[in-house]
Amino acid sequence: MPRSLYDTAHGTLFGIALNYQGLLAQRLPEFNAAPYKEPPVKPVLFIKTPNTRNQHDGTVERPTGERLQPGPALAVVIGKRASRVSEAQALEYVAGYTIANEFSLPEDSYYRPAVKAKCRDGFCALGPVLVPTQDIPNPQTLTLKLLVNGEVVQENTTANQVRGVAKLIAELSEFMTLDVGDVLITGTPEGRVDVQPGDRVDVEITGLGRLTNHIVSEQEPRP
Amino acid sequence: MPRSLYDTAHGTLFGIALNYQGLLAQRLPEFNAAPYKEPPVKPVLFIKTPNTRNQHDGTVERPTGERLQPGPALAVVIGKRASRVSEAQALEYVAGYTIANEFSLPEDSYYRPAVKAKCRDGFCALGPVLVPTQDIPNPQTLTLKLLVNGEVVQENTTANQVRGVAKLIAELSEFMTLDVGDVLITGTPEGRVDVQPGDRVDVEITGLGRLTNHIVSEQEPRP
Repeated sequence: MPRSLYDTAHGTLFGIALNYQGLLAQRLPEFNAAPYKEPPVKPVLFIKTPNTRNQHDGTVERPTGERLQPGPALAVVIGKRASRVSEAQALEYVAGYTIANEFSLPEDSYYRPAVKAKCRDGFCALGPVLVPTQDIPNPQTLTLKLLVNGEVVQENTTANQVRGVAKLIAELSEFMTLDVGDVLITGTPEGRVDVQPGDRVDVEITGLGRLTNHIVSEQEPRP
Repeated sequence: MPRSLYDTAHGTLFGIALNYQGLLAQRLPEFNAAPYKEPPVKPVLFIKTPNTRNQHDGTVERPTGERLQPGPALAVVIGKRASRVSEAQALEYVAGYTIANEFSLPEDSYYRPAVKAKCRDGFCALGPVLVPTQDIPNPQTLTLKLLVNGEVVQENTTANQVRGVAKLIAELSEFMTLDVGDVLITGTPEGRVDVQPGDRVDVEITGLGRLTNHIVSEQEPRP
């Protein structure tokens, strides 16, 4: 019997920033300037907190006075506790794959706190289903598309990832234990776009189907 | 019957950076330089992932070749779902208080990824007990002490927090829902010290008791 996505992917949602070659290339001038002087040498991680969890067909609120950007990404669900695993064995620790739409406010600098930009309620849709690893023999050959109101506005391939799935699992599990149900959101390619209330947003990834969300205005403060 | 800390504080662990006046003052020259030009205007948040959870009397591994620093902090456990609550009402959403020791590798820059510095296994001890709010009528008058092998090496007071507990809850719940069991780690004061394998580390906070941890060498890779 297939496992449900929501039963399986119950753990921590780890985001990986700057994981597409094109995006990294765009930012190189800024990294080579002060104070960094060089691009990051290790994966830059962030967390999507549990309040960000959302699903296929769910609504996403655009905060009043802010810009909202979808983030199409391949999501990897961990199936076996992983501590210091090698890149060669890493894919054995994967339960399956699904689509993530990792919503964000645009981030201009470190001092636009990432948590505030990335952890609004409903800002991480996952779905529609968990696809087992045997159906995705090579996760580095998948096409990602972002569609807004049916029109393709972003398209890329996981072949362009700076670090592929196996390398990410190896590098992360070197310093922290990945647990069953944890989810790696393996990065959004360059070319993020703004979306508006009323827009329908779809992410399609080869073999994983289509994840749909609906953008709405920020709701009135709850009492 | 008193609720157990570990039954109650089961949610997301939110860390707040730069929340002591002395620490912020130390960093001002760096914030006023490029690329930031000004100090952060909103709380700078980070997440301690579930693999960091640790407890009273637990061991903490110093990663090989790295410096390890304890982080004494007042921890606030949320008792009622909080979305856009006012500062005046914020303390009504608190279940109680406990001590956090928020361990970290020293962070020199943004490109020393925060997750890697702060989210190693066992890097967030909480305890020893949950103290209900009625026993801590004013959380902004508590003395924090860090002791290494019985000697006080850091001492400060929550009166020096940039944002007190009520203000933090109000500012955070403005953009994300805080859930029952979430924990706010309200910041470590200036003066972090290095600790070594063999050290005993205690954090004491007025009215909350003493949280003890033992530093050990990094263990061999698990098979």
